[in-house]
Amino acid sequence: MSDLILAVDIGGTKFAAGLVDPYGRVVTAERAATPQGGDAETLWETLTTLLDRLDLPAALAGVGVGCGGPMTWPEGEVSPLNMGGWRGFPLRGRLAGRFPGVPVRIHNDAICLAVAEHWRGAGQGSEAMLGMVVSTGVGGGLILGGRLIDGGTGNAGHIGHVVVDPGGPPCGCGGNGCLEAIARGPGLAAWALAQGWSPNAGVTHGELYREEGTATARRLAADATAGDPIALAAMARAGRALGVAIASAVNLCDLDLVTVGGGLSQAGDLLFAPLEEALRKHTRMGFAGRVRVVPAALGQDAGLVGAAALVAAGDRYWSPER
Amino acid sequence: MSDLILAVDIGGTKFAAGLVDPYGRVVTAERAATPQGGDAETLWETLTTLLDRLDLPAALAGVGVGCGGPMTWPEGEVSPLNMGGWRGFPLRGRLAGRFPGVPVRIHNDAICLAVAEHWRGAGQGSEAMLGMVVSTGVGGGLILGGRLIDGGTGNAGHIGHVVVDPGGPPCGCGGNGCLEAIARGPGLAAWALAQGWSPNAGVTHGELYREEGTATARRLAADATAGDPIALAAMARAGRALGVAIASAVNLCDLDLVTVGGGLSQAGDLLFAPLEEALRKHTRMGFAGRVRVVPAALGQDAGLVGAAALVAAGDRYWSPER
Repeated sequence: MSDLILAVDIGGTKFAAGLVDPYGRVVTAERAATPQGGDAETLWETLTTLLDRLDLPAALAGVGVGCGGPMTWPEGEVSPLNMGGWRGFPLRGRLAGRFPGVPVRIHNDAICLAVAEHWRGAGQGSEAMLGMVVSTGVGGGLILGGRLIDGGTGNAGHIGHVVVDPGGPPCGCGGNGCLEAIARGPGLAAWALAQGWSPNAGVTHGELYREEGTATARRLAADATAGDPIALAAMARAGRALGVAIASAVNLCDLDLVTVGGGLSQAGDLLFAPLEEALRKHTRMGFAGRVRVVPAALGQDAGLVGAAALVAAGDRYWSPER
Repeated sequence: MSDLILAVDIGGTKFAAGLVDPYGRVVTAERAATPQGGDAETLWETLTTLLDRLDLPAALAGVGVGCGGPMTWPEGEVSPLNMGGWRGFPLRGRLAGRFPGVPVRIHNDAICLAVAEHWRGAGQGSEAMLGMVVSTGVGGGLILGGRLIDGGTGNAGHIGHVVVDPGGPPCGCGGNGCLEAIARGPGLAAWALAQGWSPNAGVTHGELYREEGTATARRLAADATAGDPIALAAMARAGRALGVAIASAVNLCDLDLVTVGGGLSQAGDLLFAPLEEALRKHTRMGFAGRVRVVPAALGQDAGLVGAAALVAAGDRYWSPER
């Protein structure tokens, strides 16, 4: 039996699959565009075609999967928000059928990114960490006592729906004033456009609102870096909201570390300085002062690394069958 | 060796000590008023005198202690906010010296109350629970995966410092807009007094502001129950703030249950109805809808029961020496 893990990362713009070694190194990876509007079997075929392109060993140590939520968990029937073709699609079960005799494990994509940072990225050694991604949405994963926290239904880590302003704007979740309603790329871009922002590099508004992808957040971050005052104000607005939500999480969960990845984090200090200011204002208890907020360290392979960790380091990152 | 646990509950108004059996039943208990303004040894002597009044068996299964924070943890050098005589007092160490050869374990008093509810109260069987106390302060303990979550320094569970209004009133922690700043008994009473509340039973304002004790919250709850409109408005204000903070905790930690104890919870529906309304408004994701908020089930012995659980059910409630 090989010690390689097949890792799969399913998103609204691309599918990725790769072989990852037990140390978290991606040995080989393939990517394919998500077929827009594809039905259930079209999506599945895109995935299996991608897997066929990998030079899979005769036997695998297991299969780890990250997929956009929501999903039933740990059953892994997935209904990704921006993939209408999969509604209750038994992704874990279908992969288990294709790879019999080895563990097949699945988690939310944002949780896989947090796991990746804890296992092999900026969060190594942290006992109490929140791994965040700030992009089209705002998601995360929670690691406490050095282990991934699943919560009751596998949904722990939804930092995007911590309330930062009870009277704030409506959120896609149906609530209002959530961090995500303010700090997600498209929400922030909408706010910037309403303030008169014109994206400097001629990106179309259509692109700004496409369903998934980090284009909007990255564009806004790039314009802020270039000195665009409205883009700067948008970054400050997002930073403050992030700082408040992170403070609540730190106070509640006694965190020592928060990693922030995703398109918006590309803005660097333009985002992190207002974030830090709001965070420090709201974390005044002794224990909370030690928390550090750092950019995520892993790049585009993070999703695969985190998915692999569900298998390679299941003692810390996979609880259902413990 | 006896299977009885010595449980100790140290608060700003009273000390309690008791013998608790392995099933969480308090066999016997003694109480004494906290000597106000007492120095370190006076406080210690009050405790040892209390212990001498118990009919201690020749051997104990261990000693469990709940004490007001902050403290270094798990070392248990305590500096309770409202007990100036103990600053860095080695409570765990002193008790270990007095009871050699058995485990001596200590945690924050609010955490002990949460543990009590999970072990023997309203939270039995919950996989993901927050146990809260709303009184002079607002505190709590977090149980995820069926185990007490300590966080990095033993401080997880500080629900009182989840931010519910970033522009809100200053908090004792040095921040502002924390749940505790709005919903703690004295804060709420101050708000009610500013609105023209006159406590119906002639309690003096001096009593309202005394350092610890649930008198204020209970008084306000009693007046609200009697129909006092300002007391009712205060309950609604506290309920909304509680609902928002609980929603953030539910979304972040995927909770299935929240227990609420303490003086303010005596108001029943007058508090819980606005709490529920705010909570449901801000927990719209599928998984979050299942959460239930219920009154704490244990009475005045809860602190002793929770302290005993640190020893009797250490596999779930005590991680440092696992």
